[in-house]
Amino acid sequence: MSGNSIGRLFVVTTFGESHGPAIGCVIDGCPPRLALTEADIQPDLDRRRPGQSRHTSQRREPDTVRILSGTYEGVTTGAPIALLIENVDARSRDYAPLADKFRPGHADWSWWKKYGIRDPRGGGRSSARETAMRVAAGAVARKLLAERVGIAVHGWLAQLGPHPLARPTDWAVVDENPFFCGEPDRVAELEAWMDALRKRGDSAGARVGIVASGVPAGLGEPVFDRLDADIAHAMMGINAVKGVEIGAGFRSVEQPGSEHRDELTPEGFVSNNAGGILGGVSSGQEIEVSIAVKPTSSIRQPARTVDTDGNATEVEVTGRHDPCVGIRAVPVAEAMLLLVLADHWLRDRAQNL
Amino acid sequence: MSGNSIGRLFVVTTFGESHGPAIGCVIDGCPPRLALTEADIQPDLDRRRPGQSRHTSQRREPDTVRILSGTYEGVTTGAPIALLIENVDARSRDYAPLADKFRPGHADWSWWKKYGIRDPRGGGRSSARETAMRVAAGAVARKLLAERVGIAVHGWLAQLGPHPLARPTDWAVVDENPFFCGEPDRVAELEAWMDALRKRGDSAGARVGIVASGVPAGLGEPVFDRLDADIAHAMMGINAVKGVEIGAGFRSVEQPGSEHRDELTPEGFVSNNAGGILGGVSSGQEIEVSIAVKPTSSIRQPARTVDTDGNATEVEVTGRHDPCVGIRAVPVAEAMLLLVLADHWLRDRAQNL
Amino acid sequence: MSGNSIGRLFVVTTFGESHGPAIGCVIDGCPPRLALTEADIQPDLDRRRPGQSRHTSQRREPDTVRILSGTYEGVTTGAPIALLIENVDARSRDYAPLADKFRPGHADWSWWKKYGIRDPRGGGRSSARETAMRVAAGAVARKLLAERVGIAVHGWLAQLGPHPLARPTDWAVVDENPFFCGEPDRVAELEAWMDALRKRGDSAGARVGIVASGVPAGLGEPVFDRLDADIAHAMMGINAVKGVEIGAGFRSVEQPGSEHRDELTPEGFVSNNAGGILGGVSSGQEIEVSIAVKPTSSIRQPARTVDTDGNATEVEVTGRHDPCVGIRAVPVAEAMLLLVLADHWLRDRAQNL
Amino acid sequence: MSGNSIGRLFVVTTFGESHGPAIGCVIDGCPPRLALTEADIQPDLDRRRPGQSRHTSQRREPDTVRILSGTYEGVTTGAPIALLIENVDARSRDYAPLADKFRPGHADWSWWKKYGIRDPRGGGRSSARETAMRVAAGAVARKLLAERVGIAVHGWLAQLGPHPLARPTDWAVVDENPFFCGEPDRVAELEAWMDALRKRGDSAGARVGIVASGVPAGLGEPVFDRLDADIAHAMMGINAVKGVEIGAGFRSVEQPGSEHRDELTPEGFVSNNAGGILGGVSSGQEIEVSIAVKPTSSIRQPARTVDTDGNATEVEVTGRHDPCVGIRAVPVAEAMLLLVLADHWLRDRAQNL
Repeated sequence: MSGNSIGRLFVVTTFGESHGPAIGCVIDGCPPRLALTEADIQPDLDRRRPGQSRHTSQRREPDTVRILSGTYEGVTTGAPIALLIENVDARSRDYAPLADKFRPGHADWSWWKKYGIRDPRGGGRSSARETAMRVAAGAVARKLLAERVGIAVHGWLAQLGPHPLARPTDWAVVDENPFFCGEPDRVAELEAWMDALRKRGDSAGARVGIVASGVPAGLGEPVFDRLDADIAHAMMGINAVKGVEIGAGFRSVEQPGSEHRDELTPEGFVSNNAGGILGGVSSGQEIEVSIAVKPTSSIRQPARTVDTDGNATEVEVTGRHDPCVGIRAVPVAEAMLLLVLADHWLRDRAQNL
Repeated sequence: MSGNSIGRLFVVTTFGESHGPAIGCVIDGCPPRLALTEADIQPDLDRRRPGQSRHTSQRREPDTVRILSGTYEGVTTGAPIALLIENVDARSRDYAPLADKFRPGHADWSWWKKYGIRDPRGGGRSSARETAMRVAAGAVARKLLAERVGIAVHGWLAQLGPHPLARPTDWAVVDENPFFCGEPDRVAELEAWMDALRKRGDSAGARVGIVASGVPAGLGEPVFDRLDADIAHAMMGINAVKGVEIGAGFRSVEQPGSEHRDELTPEGFVSNNAGGILGGVSSGQEIEVSIAVKPTSSIRQPARTVDTDGNATEVEVTGRHDPCVGIRAVPVAEAMLLLVLADHWLRDRAQNL
Repeated sequence: MSGNSIGRLFVVTTFGESHGPAIGCVIDGCPPRLALTEADIQPDLDRRRPGQSRHTSQRREPDTVRILSGTYEGVTTGAPIALLIENVDARSRDYAPLADKFRPGHADWSWWKKYGIRDPRGGGRSSARETAMRVAAGAVARKLLAERVGIAVHGWLAQLGPHPLARPTDWAVVDENPFFCGEPDRVAELEAWMDALRKRGDSAGARVGIVASGVPAGLGEPVFDRLDADIAHAMMGINAVKGVEIGAGFRSVEQPGSEHRDELTPEGFVSNNAGGILGGVSSGQEIEVSIAVKPTSSIRQPARTVDTDGNATEVEVTGRHDPCVGIRAVPVAEAMLLLVLADHWLRDRAQNL
Repeated sequence: MSGNSIGRLFVVTTFGESHGPAIGCVIDGCPPRLALTEADIQPDLDRRRPGQSRHTSQRREPDTVRILSGTYEGVTTGAPIALLIENVDARSRDYAPLADKFRPGHADWSWWKKYGIRDPRGGGRSSARETAMRVAAGAVARKLLAERVGIAVHGWLAQLGPHPLARPTDWAVVDENPFFCGEPDRVAELEAWMDALRKRGDSAGARVGIVASGVPAGLGEPVFDRLDADIAHAMMGINAVKGVEIGAGFRSVEQPGSEHRDELTPEGFVSNNAGGILGGVSSGQEIEVSIAVKPTSSIRQPARTVDTDGNATEVEVTGRHDPCVGIRAVPVAEAMLLLVLADHWLRDRAQNL
């Protein structure tokens, strides 16, 4: 594989399977002398954690993180920071009937073709459980960027199935409902819609919005490691993501140039179709990202598939799953943007101080 | 910078500015014993070359490529392949009035904030001229993948401003019109629309579709260097691209899981919402990518901006520019997909033969 | 830091401090379908483990390794393999008097200048304890290379202080004495010499020899990632190593070309001054490496030093230390060669199958 | 291959064969706003250039370098710097009789096993001619490090065959004789010895010393990308190098710890057995490196070898060769140290400013 690391200077490597003894990560490249304890990381993990409402997976994982290395008396030393979370509530028996069938829409088929072996328990390494470690690492990046640069990253559910949801005017409300929804008065409507969806054993896609404010101009390494390119890499690398936009995104296809280009005045840019990135380098405006998250493939409705011998069969997935993975993708997407920004902040310092 | 390379095993490094003496690239990691001469590369360059119709930039560059290293008697040796194209028709005087103003929608502002210096002649390194070398390198990847794996990559203009354009049923027609349009009977309509656009000094966005067929199952290195993640990185790294989709892309937001998941039968998948990638690994289906290309910012209509002293001013761009960069983005996007596939084909061989 | 990984395709990342809760590593890129359990790794760790004779550190660490990920039912899946060893016998109180003094010959000074903070407990991250994880990862590489390629790597103590020691004729004897000495009848002599050394509170340097047999011709990626260059990187990256030789090494300075060049006959090379590497690529001969390990700096004899305020002071190191770190460097050096060979075997497969 | 780049942030990629149209390199990551023209690079190339005395190869290459990109009005812009040198005096006919025989001691055999094809003209890519581009890139690093950090790197011939040569007390003398010898009064002796050697058609090994002064404490990224490890990688990656030492090197094998460890006083270290690197990180002392360069294998005396069909044959090399490649290795070794220091200076800035 050797594809389990991300970043060039702020390098995060994750490991672990859904039903293995533990999941973990190593953060290599965090600058020294940053105050850091588990209490800085746990809150982000708690936001992503399953089992907190009836609208996400019912697996109950406390996701208690432990720092194994890289700090001394609560301060980073420059050495690699290893984080570990033990798996507590794995229920592998749910997967026994799936061991020799490929679940449609999952990694089962393609990974089996690639590796010739697969860990069927909870999807093994391809499980969304792996994203917990991205959130943990992202929390470290969040603290670093907040303290040293003044960057803040926020995400929200921008669309749930057919329901578009406005960008929050107050970020606090996002964490006060189980949907990371920025419009509190629409939560009841979403709950009713989700209940009906779950009742008919189906699942929903979602769109997630993420913005970074306080990003200095100058981050991004053209021509290939442009900031937008690295953000696209990080976002499309989240399980179930099928699309990534920066700024106006696909809307720019129908915009004339006279509308799209963001004019400049001594007071700053007059619009932000660019989403804060010009020529692959941050402009100092807010960075705006939008991603499409496909609907969960694990639903109660039976589907045609084949078994490992190539015979036609049917599969019905009865394990504990998120009816809309897009919801819990919100903290994961924030984490991925944080990791990219931390890496590029360090890369820019190297060259341009 | 150190962001001018792409790939882990099939590594391409580009160099050169729009108005410098030459542009070039080094391909490091091409397997030995592949027959390769300039004649294998020139046709792809000719497809991207400006000055071929009134709908693209009028700069006349023959873009004649020279192989400087890496082959012996017309066959690759495993040594790095250096390609060079001399710049012939640079007209730097067009840029003199722009040297101390930032063109809106361009890299001028952000790169100047980053580097504290910029080459104003034709955008310097941020010019789309740099993409010629991506196309040259992509041609080498195309030959490698065609001969050793049987992969073919095709692109087309999927939307021009407000005009959606169907996927070609015959790839040959794409190269027979100046728009890379797959619907030959709509070319006259597009020409008229473009003429009107140019007349009013404006520009248009576009959507480009790219498909790869013959891709074996198993390419992609989870969890971060997934095939879709690396494709997103490569595509968002093309100048002017603001969005990337794989398969159903943003349509998956509104699909229920029962519709999105592609069922499997002994005869194969029954649909391809996944766009040929499951769990970050190719499934053996066609890989389908779609990208949004913003409208050119360099248009004749004046725009508000600031100069290097921060004073308000106006800019009017009169150089030779593509009224829709999305058109010439077609061969560039093909090249980027080819580079990613070549790299992942090698990466997979290392691990899984 | 971000220097805690080694390898391009067989990538090993280590973490952990001497007196932290645990040390560990992640192996990313091990091919799938290799049978692997803790029992394959423990024997190599036991060879390196301290406290096994009076000639090495008296710290008693069982060094019991646990596989946290990457295997399913005792077989690798292609997912990253995380290994963890808990620290059991850390005695941090020994280091309290050293917290504000720099031990000569140690990383104390340079790391403090670099990071502005240091973990004084047992040297923190700079401790030789970190090499346990290299040995663990090396054991995985050893199994992979033995089963898939037929490569075997052996090391021995080639010189202890002033005592040169011949290359073993039988590798089994090396593990039957506490010195990794290939001349069993000289062990008593070495023990006596070491006892006298320890008595006067001093320490000794050593030379370690490592050979790899069964290496196919063709490994190494010129011109910078030559096999010898990557071996030199790996070996010089072991704590206390000050010199690396391949084949004739420094002897080649005084050899005429007519003597040094290894002639070829249909039966093979007639000598091996090259040490199995020509032009940076393995020739199919045995790979021969030799390294110089400096004497331990932590000795009972007092030394002049400065404290963190820059004042002159004296330091006397009373913790538990190896009087000759070169001895336990034998399994570490084997591991480093194994890691390099595993990486280059994969790299060569990618390009040349 | 994909082994033709060195460095993580100051990345140099070389290309080109001995008898191809040109050799070149790309430097990606040089900070912007450094004054740079060809005149800054040519002097270092002139020092390495062949044909300047009867003691080096008689091939006459002017080695005139051209900057193709990365500067604007004589100042670096942060974009990749491409350098090109055309090959002028290649005499491929010398190699016709060698096309189907493997020269002992050369890359011929191992590269042919690896790639299944080889460019026999002058050794193709394995030729020492490739090192010209290292020197060119090193000249850019030299200017950067001199102006921004105050680092100076010097090399000298420390031993010619059996003749040890003292470290110069005045660096200027090194460039005033054809041996890079620091003892001017011994030049006649060396010339006589070399004349006799050449007369009997043999060649000599050498030892080269390189020192870097003005290096700030703190460079190096433990635990694998230690400064000494990366220096060893760079040095062992020079053609014909068989050994690398830092500081006391192999002498440390016989030193007791009480002698080796460099004590510290408020005035600084009292000795430098460490060679300026402790725990893989620069200490602020001078960095001292020593390398062993094997004797040229291309000599007039005939040698046994095999042809590409495996039959026994004889080879006699009559082309133009250096009787002691170690001499011209002096500027190459300086360049490699400069490249490593430039890279680590940038890496350290990223983390620790």
